[in-house]
Amino acid sequence: MKYPFKADFRVAFRDVDLHNVLHHSNYFYYCEKGRVELLRSVNLPYKKIMEMGIGLMLVECKLKFIAPVKFDDILNMHMGTDKMGKSSFKILYSIEVDGKIVSEGYTHHVCVNLKSNKPTRLPENLFAKLNSFQIQEND
Amino acid sequence: MKYPFKADFRVAFRDVDLHNVLHHSNYFYYCEKGRVELLRSVNLPYKKIMEMGIGLMLVECKLKFIAPVKFDDILNMHMGTDKMGKSSFKILYSIEVDGKIVSEGYTHHVCVNLKSNKPTRLPENLFAKLNSFQIQEND
Amino acid sequence: MKYPFKADFRVAFRDVDLHNVLHHSNYFYYCEKGRVELLRSVNLPYKKIMEMGIGLMLVECKLKFIAPVKFDDILNMHMGTDKMGKSSFKILYSIEVDGKIVSEGYTHHVCVNLKSNKPTRLPENLFAKLNSFQIQEND
Amino acid sequence: MKYPFKADFRVAFRDVDLHNVLHHSNYFYYCEKGRVELLRSVNLPYKKIMEMGIGLMLVECKLKFIAPVKFDDILNMHMGTDKMGKSSFKILYSIEVDGKIVSEGYTHHVCVNLKSNKPTRLPENLFAKLNSFQIQEND
Repeated sequence: MKYPFKADFRVAFRDVDLHNVLHHSNYFYYCEKGRVELLRSVNLPYKKIMEMGIGLMLVECKLKFIAPVKFDDILNMHMGTDKMGKSSFKILYSIEVDGKIVSEGYTHHVCVNLKSNKPTRLPENLFAKLNSFQIQEND
Repeated sequence: MKYPFKADFRVAFRDVDLHNVLHHSNYFYYCEKGRVELLRSVNLPYKKIMEMGIGLMLVECKLKFIAPVKFDDILNMHMGTDKMGKSSFKILYSIEVDGKIVSEGYTHHVCVNLKSNKPTRLPENLFAKLNSFQIQEND
Repeated sequence: MKYPFKADFRVAFRDVDLHNVLHHSNYFYYCEKGRVELLRSVNLPYKKIMEMGIGLMLVECKLKFIAPVKFDDILNMHMGTDKMGKSSFKILYSIEVDGKIVSEGYTHHVCVNLKSNKPTRLPENLFAKLNSFQIQEND
Repeated sequence: MKYPFKADFRVAFRDVDLHNVLHHSNYFYYCEKGRVELLRSVNLPYKKIMEMGIGLMLVECKLKFIAPVKFDDILNMHMGTDKMGKSSFKILYSIEVDGKIVSEGYTHHVCVNLKSNKPTRLPENLFAKLNSFQIQEND
C-alpha cells in the first residue's frame, strides 16, 4: 500500500516500559501526534477544527505490534485515509524503525458536533482534505 | 458472553482529554490494570511471572469505543481469556459504566522468554490458570 | 508531622520506567488521585467542585524522591493541608512503601473561577473542609 | 539568567487535561525530553550513558506554573546546569510560549551505578559536558 503522508517522532524515555519496549498504549499517543501533523499539513490544525465546533472522536482502534520499539528510536509513521464516509473515516498507520515495519493498524473516527455530542457530516473542506490522503493499493 | 473475572477502576483526572472523555490510549492502561488483577487473583502476580523470566508481550490490541467515559466514572471491567494456545492467548474485555457497555475489545499476548526475547511455551501452571478464565458463549 | 488523611494506591505497570522505577512525573499522578480521594472523603468530589465553576489549579509542585518505588508496590500516601489562604492552599504528601518513606513534597493550589480563569475565594464549605485536614506539627 | 541550551516541543493532545491546560505532571515529561536533547547535543545520548552502566536518577524536582499552556502550543525550553557536584547536578528550566515565561523550575539528579544502585562519580567526560552548560547569572 502507498501511504501519502509521513511524520517522524522520537520515542521519549517515559513512553517505554520496564522491558525497554514502547508501551502498547503509547503507540496510540504517537499515532495521534501523526494525525495532528497530517491535519496541520493541509492547513487544518485540529485546534482549528475544534474551534469550528467539531471533534474527530475515535470509535475503534487497532494495532499490531510486529517488532519491539525502544527508547530513543525514531518512528517513521506512514499514514493515509480509508473508508471515507460522510461523517466517518479511518486513518491507517504503518510505522517503521530503521526501514523495518514495527507496527500497523488503524483508528476509526466519527465527526461529532461538540455541543450536541452527536455525529455530524464532515465539513466539505475537511472531507476533501482527508480524501486527498486516501491510501492507494499497490498494483 | 460470560466473562469470568471482573475488576473495577475509577477514572483518574489525568486520563481524560480536553473533551472530558477518557483518552482512547488510556483504556489500554486500565485494561492492563485489569490483567494484573486477573493474574493476581490466581496467585500469579505479573511481577512473579517476570521473575520466572517470562513476559506476556502484546502482539495486537483492539478496542471499540461505544459510549464516552468521563472523569471519576467507575469502570466495571469484565474479562476472560480466549484462543488459548501453547504460547499465546487473548484477553477479552467488556467495560461497563453504570450498567451500560462503553467499550469492548481484546489484547493478544505471546509468552516470551525475557532473556532470548523469543516466544516460549506458557508454563503449565500459568496456562491452566488462564484457561480457567475462558470466556463462555451464551446459549 | 501528623497527616490527617491517607489513601493507598498500587503502582501500575505503565507508570514505571525502564529502570523499573516509578517515573518521577507519575508520582504527581498518584498525588492527584490522593487529592481526589481526600476531597471525596468530605463529600466534595472534584467533579462536583468543577460543577460549581471552580478549579483548584496548581501554581507550584515539588517532590523529593528518597527511595525507589517499583511496579506493583503499594503507595501509602499520607496527606494534609497547609498554608490555608482565602484563595490558595498547599497539600503536603508523605508517601510510604512497606513503612518506609519513599517521597515527600507538596502541591500548591489556587482556587480559580473556571469562566474568568481568575483567582477567586475558596467557597466557605470547601475552605472549612480543607482546613479540617490541616497538618499538625509534632510536639 | 542565561540558559545555554534550548529545545522546542509542541504540546500533544493527550498531554492536556479537561481544562485544556498542560497537565502539571506532563511538564516533567517535556523537561525530560529537553534533557535528552541537551545530552544528545554534546554527543552523549542518554541511551549511550545507560550503556555505560550509569543512570541520572532524580532526587528532587520542582516547577512553578506561571501561565497556562494549551494543546498545540510550542514550548521553548531554555535549560542549563547548576550546582555541579562530583556525582550530582541540577538542571534548570525556563519555559516560554510566544515569548512569555510559563514555567520555571529544576530537576536534581544523582549519578547512579545501574548495577549497584548506588551513587557514583559522574564520568569525567559527562561532568565536563554538563559543566559546559552551566547557567550564567546576568550582570
